[in-house]
Amino acid sequence: MTRRPRPIITLLTDFGTDDTYVGMMKGVIAAINPEANVIDLTHAIEPQDVVGAAFALGSAFAYFPEGAVHVAVVDPGVGSARKIVCMKTARHLFLAPDNGLLTLVAQRETPTLLVEVTERRYFLPQVSRTFHGRDVFAPVAARLSLGLNPTRLGPRLRDIVRLDFPQPLAEPGGWRCQVIHVDRFGNLITNLPGDKIRSHERVLIKVGRRRIHGIRHSYAEAGPGELLAVVGSSGHIEIAVNLGSAAETLRLGRGATVRVFSDS
Amino acid sequence: MTRRPRPIITLLTDFGTDDTYVGMMKGVIAAINPEANVIDLTHAIEPQDVVGAAFALGSAFAYFPEGAVHVAVVDPGVGSARKIVCMKTARHLFLAPDNGLLTLVAQRETPTLLVEVTERRYFLPQVSRTFHGRDVFAPVAARLSLGLNPTRLGPRLRDIVRLDFPQPLAEPGGWRCQVIHVDRFGNLITNLPGDKIRSHERVLIKVGRRRIHGIRHSYAEAGPGELLAVVGSSGHIEIAVNLGSAAETLRLGRGATVRVFSDS
Amino acid sequence: MTRRPRPIITLLTDFGTDDTYVGMMKGVIAAINPEANVIDLTHAIEPQDVVGAAFALGSAFAYFPEGAVHVAVVDPGVGSARKIVCMKTARHLFLAPDNGLLTLVAQRETPTLLVEVTERRYFLPQVSRTFHGRDVFAPVAARLSLGLNPTRLGPRLRDIVRLDFPQPLAEPGGWRCQVIHVDRFGNLITNLPGDKIRSHERVLIKVGRRRIHGIRHSYAEAGPGELLAVVGSSGHIEIAVNLGSAAETLRLGRGATVRVFSDS
Repeated sequence: MTRRPRPIITLLTDFGTDDTYVGMMKGVIAAINPEANVIDLTHAIEPQDVVGAAFALGSAFAYFPEGAVHVAVVDPGVGSARKIVCMKTARHLFLAPDNGLLTLVAQRETPTLLVEVTERRYFLPQVSRTFHGRDVFAPVAARLSLGLNPTRLGPRLRDIVRLDFPQPLAEPGGWRCQVIHVDRFGNLITNLPGDKIRSHERVLIKVGRRRIHGIRHSYAEAGPGELLAVVGSSGHIEIAVNLGSAAETLRLGRGATVRVFSDS
Repeated sequence: MTRRPRPIITLLTDFGTDDTYVGMMKGVIAAINPEANVIDLTHAIEPQDVVGAAFALGSAFAYFPEGAVHVAVVDPGVGSARKIVCMKTARHLFLAPDNGLLTLVAQRETPTLLVEVTERRYFLPQVSRTFHGRDVFAPVAARLSLGLNPTRLGPRLRDIVRLDFPQPLAEPGGWRCQVIHVDRFGNLITNLPGDKIRSHERVLIKVGRRRIHGIRHSYAEAGPGELLAVVGSSGHIEIAVNLGSAAETLRLGRGATVRVFSDS
Repeated sequence: MTRRPRPIITLLTDFGTDDTYVGMMKGVIAAINPEANVIDLTHAIEPQDVVGAAFALGSAFAYFPEGAVHVAVVDPGVGSARKIVCMKTARHLFLAPDNGLLTLVAQRETPTLLVEVTERRYFLPQVSRTFHGRDVFAPVAARLSLGLNPTRLGPRLRDIVRLDFPQPLAEPGGWRCQVIHVDRFGNLITNLPGDKIRSHERVLIKVGRRRIHGIRHSYAEAGPGELLAVVGSSGHIEIAVNLGSAAETLRLGRGATVRVFSDS
């Protein structure tokens, strides 16, 4: 006898882990589907930072196996008329408030089904107006992980809310880019995919008042404390300091401008 | 063949997640019951804050399915003569130092069995005097999750230590309440259950130097940055700022007074 | 029919939990071995702090059951020529960059097999130069948890890189020790095993400008706020303040000197 693999539910929220909010969501899930394998993506999204959540989900979801249910709750409009959406793609299911959180996911995997989540029979019996993570998202995700057809959740949606993410702008000789994420190591991750650059040796990067020549293969190719550019693990150009923090060294953060020239 | 659902063990401690203390507890549990589904409630209780732990456990446990084993280790008296208690209610099992941590749980679900945990055969072979979480609580919880009858753990206890939690005080025209928890969003959660208030429209709330008229249904009903009151996800009145932090706006925290008047 | 116990994979990194790096590793593991029970040791190692990681892993691994796969990724040399090592001991498997991270483990359990991890067929198809945690460590660990023989991972290694950990120095009348870890409670954990001291009553300890007489059995044996010494849960002498923080009281941290005299 072979076991059916345990269904995966990922969680991404701005709830933090100091309170018991995430624990309660896991309790609700476990009560409905005890076999679910619940994996935290992160709960440290800044409160109400939908853009940061969209980036985090967009860069992580593809590493999960087919059939995973991704639940993302960064939900400034909780309890208001904002919709909750269930989005199906070829490989995954997503459950999120319809506030733009799924923008990057929908760019990377074409949605094959969009449903507005309205059927209260799949919610907790008592639904608060302030914590849909526990009362709506968790029980619905648990039922999806048991195989519930998303079409049962409510009426079809024609489209989701999409955010305007800053795109790298072509300018004479190169690109004007933006920092879209700063990670724990102080790496500045830009919105420029590494494959936009042909010759990595001959690139000139201007960031703050500093210039960087060439794109390295790894952090360790630079000397200790040296500023460098690299194609990071998300496939994007990132600015780093070997054994240090580019964010601290440059005193730059999300939204900062990075200009990339072909240096020829 | 149906599988028995994986038994649930929840953990609530003041150990933080920077050290490996929680990881060691999970190792001990997995060695005894590899099928246990261990769920973190929180490990960010302030060191030795038994009151905060009691609130956190009291608001979260009910969302877990029947049979869950809840382990709470905030234990300033570790290694002293303080008792360890196993408490059974109709739906759950609890394991905690007998220091008041179970006060709120015992108000919400009547204890049906109280046992002092003394039987060393269920502990790790070597018991330190400084880390009973690993050496006593984890192995005992794992055995309970395997079906061990709690009466085997030691002699019956007549009662547990109970803390005096501040109760809302009736005063002319309303209630004098206290903030009992501040969450990640800066919401000030009071000790006043929302169902004590009949007309939510006609309420007047005084907190710090500010007045709030009426209780809203959701955060988003207020304007951005606006101070509001709401019945939060714990069922209690809470003071919030839409898209902001009431704790920062009002510079108030746990213990602050909130007065609620029927405004008629 | 009995189930094979779920194989355990532990994770110890300096990735933090604010980013989705750890979540991605868990996605990769779940795609290869959905039955793996992935347990976090800690992700809060200071960036690139190999010494701190070696201490954390060395004190925690032994509490896990036989067959656990321990993955430790604190990897300042990621993408460079540094090796990745798979180390087998009598009870466990370890996977780490060969940078000294396994020093303490190898002192406590004799390595029975050392392999350099080079076989790309066990990695993700695309291996970045900046995130081997996701692209190399996670898929290799998942395959080891499925029973892959470590000898398949690459050529044998003769030895691993070992760090010089500060040892307690015998001096007239006692020991000159060092603080090797400060935990969340502000306890100062030294490198002196408690069993080096015969009479715990007659010990004199000098730390900063303070003197401590005798070693207590538990924190609670001292008065509130009192400085004390105790044999901590790692088996080492540790300096603590009952219901307080020794690190804050003494303003001392890792590397501080503690002198222990037999006081006779």
